[in-house]
Order: sequence, then structure tokens, then C-alpha cells
Amino acid sequence: MNFSYFMPSRIFFGAGSLARLGEVKLPGHKALIVISAGTAMRKQGYLDRVIALLAKGGAASVVFDKIQPNPIKSHVMEAAALARAEGCDFVVGLGGGSSMDSAKSIALMANNPGDYWDYIFGGSGKGRPVPNPALPIIAITTTAGTGTEADPWTVITKEDTHEKIGFGNDSTFPTISIVDPELMLSVPPHLTAYQGMDAFFHAAEGVIASCASPISDLYAFKSIELLARYLPVAVRDGADKEARAQVAFANTLSGFVESTSSCTSEHSLEHALSALHPELPHGAGLTMLSVAYFEFFIGKIPDALFEKMARAMGEDVDALPAAERPKAFIVALKKLIAASGLAELKLSDYGITREELPALARNARETMGGLFEVDRYTLSLDDTVAVFEKAWR
Amino acid sequence: MNFSYFMPSRIFFGAGSLARLGEVKLPGHKALIVISAGTAMRKQGYLDRVIALLAKGGAASVVFDKIQPNPIKSHVMEAAALARAEGCDFVVGLGGGSSMDSAKSIALMANNPGDYWDYIFGGSGKGRPVPNPALPIIAITTTAGTGTEADPWTVITKEDTHEKIGFGNDSTFPTISIVDPELMLSVPPHLTAYQGMDAFFHAAEGVIASCASPISDLYAFKSIELLARYLPVAVRDGADKEARAQVAFANTLSGFVESTSSCTSEHSLEHALSALHPELPHGAGLTMLSVAYFEFFIGKIPDALFEKMARAMGEDVDALPAAERPKAFIVALKKLIAASGLAELKLSDYGITREELPALARNARETMGGLFEVDRYTLSLDDTVAVFEKAWR
Repeated sequence: MNFSYFMPSRIFFGAGSLARLGEVKLPGHKALIVISAGTAMRKQGYLDRVIALLAKGGAASVVFDKIQPNPIKSHVMEAAALARAEGCDFVVGLGGGSSMDSAKSIALMANNPGDYWDYIFGGSGKGRPVPNPALPIIAITTTAGTGTEADPWTVITKEDTHEKIGFGNDSTFPTISIVDPELMLSVPPHLTAYQGMDAFFHAAEGVIASCASPISDLYAFKSIELLARYLPVAVRDGADKEARAQVAFANTLSGFVESTSSCTSEHSLEHALSALHPELPHGAGLTMLSVAYFEFFIGKIPDALFEKMARAMGEDVDALPAAERPKAFIVALKKLIAASGLAELKLSDYGITREELPALARNARETMGGLFEVDRYTLSLDDTVAVFEKAWR
Repeated sequence: MNFSYFMPSRIFFGAGSLARLGEVKLPGHKALIVISAGTAMRKQGYLDRVIALLAKGGAASVVFDKIQPNPIKSHVMEAAALARAEGCDFVVGLGGGSSMDSAKSIALMANNPGDYWDYIFGGSGKGRPVPNPALPIIAITTTAGTGTEADPWTVITKEDTHEKIGFGNDSTFPTISIVDPELMLSVPPHLTAYQGMDAFFHAAEGVIASCASPISDLYAFKSIELLARYLPVAVRDGADKEARAQVAFANTLSGFVESTSSCTSEHSLEHALSALHPELPHGAGLTMLSVAYFEFFIGKIPDALFEKMARAMGEDVDALPAAERPKAFIVALKKLIAASGLAELKLSDYGITREELPALARNARETMGGLFEVDRYTLSLDDTVAVFEKAWR
């Protein structure tokens, strides 16, 4: 039952909560606002609203608008230089996980010397200690996927070496996070599904991780329950405010899971996929791996973990013979994937060939080997390849 | 579903976690350690262990050992003067809620001018803004009762005017909290029961408070479930480590409830009782009020709140006719009180007379009126007296 708990971000949750940005004490006088290279933040008016709310709080703004769906190190370095040149003293990430994660990494590099990869553990990262804390970070999420508003983690790809690696320390927890489900109403169905499944796996991996605890389980099982129930609704009808709010809440809970437990090697496997195929959405990658990945652990780690997840997803586990109960989770997972419109996803449709699976397995283990260490059963290289092969079609 | 979340304390939970105090970066160089006037902290060796662990982290210590079960303002002022005179730059509260709450208030006054009551809202408090943050606080709990290790609140009695009032701000969250159930093994059965019931009411009031939210409910229902199941076990057999750990976890969850929802007027009523009768343990006072108090709200606030609490406590609510379901909570509450050995508690045994109940009702409303404002149904003065009268015997 031992655990440590630290989640110091101040979170404003709920429909209309973006307005709180105009009421709180801001952590600085000039913000670098980080948004994606897409058009949504401008078209939806979110960027203008954020600039106006920051101005209301007495802060000027500069915008960096180049972030890609799988965010890259060169943008982190470019934006950090911009923040320094402009004298920005805090960073606002506005958008999905890619913009918020970039904001964290930019805030770190705006206040530290050298190259971002100097501080990265794994792959070609130098794993050096970070001299200074990140600038204060405000995370404003317009999607329900990464939970990054409630954890310290940021995932960035070094594009030349195809390494997609996570980083975080106490200073990369957002100072303030805003989760306003009204900002999510316009997310299209397929992205709603990918992002919601990402949140789902943050919770489900957090349950099977060896560092799970009563507090991370509290968050994780509630997130799993809410996503099984509401994600298909939000995918079917994006205007359903109740479903959007419940999915947003589940996603924030999954962020709490990330702060109190951990992802497992499923995330390492997916990072390899999307590092080498940056057009693959992270949540889609996880979804395509998931049935093979979780099936691999059945019989190797306690059955109760799967049974409790299946129960949280509404399966009548107790009506099954004992030997079949853990598999009820796989049944429920397949139902959720189908109900979220993702049953037809195929790795080969993203240009991933069967031949490259061994190389992907090696990339996963070399760049994100740390997550293999929190698995309750340690995958060999052969096991890793076998999971990829089973997931491939 | 709107809420804000802020609980920045770093919590180390679990058997043996006291050792973490010797490993963490301490928030200063010289600690004022605040303990009760009782002998337990020295006799059990906890004080020596804490001094040694702080020394390991490079911090000197001064001890203030006068705290009473219902802690008083004059001790806050005396200890704050000592902290200043000794050059202490952080404060450690070691013991039960009274020592940890005192540590918070001492940390505040060690870094602020004037009198503690200058900053108190309610009663004769002047409600002035606090110029400076409190010194950093470390909370080490040796009981499972107040949840103060996971919230910013501190409750102090102004002894000359019999006012028992809560206070808290962002700076009175502990920087570090240690919840080591092994430190609780020696708490005698009756105190285990009082403290556990205090934790229970933090959760149950947090559910019926108008500011409850999905996040506070997540903590509250789990705390209610764990206390209904494990508190009677911990009372019967204090050496049961599993029960001690589950009760300690429930209590920390109830602290989270305090940070995300609120107590209701039940706490105002109890504060009046123990302000005028300081020998009355807070948890005993709450327990004696509780049946009358919660019954008062049935039919006045949503039935579902009571039904969900009853379900969390293991009652087969769905087997009952709809009209009787909310009362299942009262049934479960009475069972928990009896199973915790508290069925025979009587207000009159603590010298509380029927004649003084109207004065107690006025004290509750004058000193802690704020909590009446988060009740979903607003009690009149007559209602308040009526609850006291129904609870009295």
C-alpha cells in the first residue's frame, strides 16, 4: 500500500472554466503561447480568447504556432529561443497534448542552457541533471487525451534519430491547468476516439504497472469506468455536453494516474511506431497494439487486475467461470474499440510493414526502456516482437 | 461538474514511510517541532526518531511540547515567538490533528505580525488579509483522524471567548506530509474510534455539501467505504496492520475531501460543543451529533446522496422500498458507531446540559457561520437548536 503523492497543479475543471484564466493571479507578465500549426485555435477563436484573458490579468503575449501532432525537438529549441528573445516569463500551452507537452519542454529550455536532448534519459539522450526549473506553465487543453494537464510529463520526438521520449520533473507540472469541456465540442469523431483511447490506456497501464497504488487505482478505475461508458457517446455525438465533460474528467483522472503510477511498455511500443511514422496518431497506435499487448500479460500477472478493470467497464465478470474472467477485460476492450469506431484500424494502413517490426521492438527498448521496468512481467526482445506481430495486420 | 483542484502537499504514505523524512530535501535548516503536552511522542520514541531524521537532512531542531487536545491560540502565539527567537525556518507538526493544526498556525504566525485572531474570519476574528505566507510545514501524523496532512486547514480555539474556528490558505498546505500507519499501532481503541469517525464525517459532510464535485466524491465515497469496513477492525485489534493502513488511507482521502469539498454545519455544531467543553474529543462530539444531524437532511436534499453513501457502506439499498432507501444511511451509520464501540456516548456525560443547547446553537452560527452556507438546505436557528436537542441525552 506504500505510495508517494505529488500533483501540485491547480486545476480549473468544467464548462466555461476558461474564464478563470482572467481571474487567477498569473505567474508572470509575458506569456509565450504555444499552439499547433493547424488552424483550429484561431478558427475557433480560442487563441483570441486566451490572449484577451491574459491581457485582463496584465500579461502580454507572443505566439509560437508551429507545433506538429507528434511534436519535435527542433520546435522546442526554436520556441525556447523565441521566449528568451521576447523576455517571456511563463509559457501557455493551448491545444492538445502536442501543444501542452511542447509548452512544458519549451518552458524548461527557455530557462536552461544547452540542448533539450542533454537532459533526456534513454536513447541518445545525455541524461544530465537540469540546472534550473522550467518557467511556470499554464496548460489549457482543448482535447481529452494525454492528461498532461495533470502530470509533469512531456513527450518529444528527436526527428533525425526517430526517438520519441518522455521527460518530466517537479517544475514541469503546470502551475495552472484549465479543462473546459466546451473547448472540446468541435473535436471530430475520429480524434475524439484516438484521444479518449489514449486516456484509457494511461489508466489501464497504470493499473497493471508494478508501481500502482491505492491512490492511482482510485483514479484509474474511475477513468476506465467513465471512458467505457461515455467515450462511445462522445464519438457518436460530439455535441453531447455531458459525455464531453465525463470524458474530459476521465482524461484528467488519467493524468493523475500518470502522476501517481506509470505507463507501461505499451507506451514504449507505441512511441517507436509514431517516432518512425509520425503521421500515426498516438491513440490510434495504442489502440492497434492494445489487444495483443494486454492479452500477453494474462496468466503472467494477477488475474484480479483484469477482472477489476472488466468490472469497471460493466462486464458481468462474476457470471463467468473463473478461468475466463481475466479475458472479460479483452472482451470489454474490443467492445470499447468497436463502439468508438476504431475496429477497422490497421498498422499496415499507416505504412508499417511486417518486416520492420523487429527494428521497432529494438527502438522501443532502446529509447523508452524505463517503462519495461515497471511491467509486472518483463518482456524479452522476442516477447516485444511477438506482441508487435500479433497486433500487426 | 465544475470544480477546482489544488492539493500541493507531497505525501509519503505507508508502513515505514517515516524514514523518507531522512531522504527528502528539507525545506529549511532549523525546525520547530510541535508536539502535544502528553507523553506519547517521547515514550514511543517518535520524537527522537524525527530529530535524528531531520539531523540526517542537515536540520537542527527545537521542540515545543505544550499542545492540548483542543489546541489554543495562546500556545500558537507562544510557539511562534519561540520559532522567531530560535531562528526556525520551518515547522514540523508531529502527532495528532491538534499538533499538526497547531504547527500550521504557528508557521503562519512565525512569519506574520500581530495576533492570530487578526486573520480569523468569524466570531471576534478581524478577518484581515495575511501579509506573508506561513513558514514551510511538515506534517507527520500519528493518528488517523483529521486528514490535516492533506488539506490547508487548522482549527484553533480562542480560549477566553470559547471560539473554535478554522483557518487556511495556500501556504498552510504542508510542504511534506508523512502518513506512516506503523506510528498509529499504539493508539488506544477509544481514540482510534473518535479519530476514525472524524475522518468519516469529513467524507460524509463532503458528500452532502453543496460544493461537492466528481473529484471530491471520488475521494469521499472511497473513504466512507474503507472506514465502514476497517474502522471497527482497527478499534477491535489495534495491531491489525492492514486495518490501520486502510483507516490511515481513508483518513488521508478525507483530507483530500477537505481540500476539494467542505465540511458542513455539523462541524460548526461540534466546534461549539468542544469550544465550551474542551475535554470533549472532536470525533466523539461529531459522533453524538451525527444521527440527528444527518436525519435532519433526509427529505430536504437529494435522496441519492444518502443512498450512495449507504451503498458504499455495504447496505443492500436496492432491496428496500424507494421511500426507505435514504434511511439506509442512518442504519449504516448507527451500525458503524456501534461496531466502533461508541453507541453509549452521551452529551450529558461530558457535562453538556439541555439548558445550554440554545447558547451552543448561537455559538455555532456566530463562530463558524460559513459552513452553514455550504449546506444544501439552510438551517435556521430553530433548526440548529432542534438538531442539538434531538442529539442530546
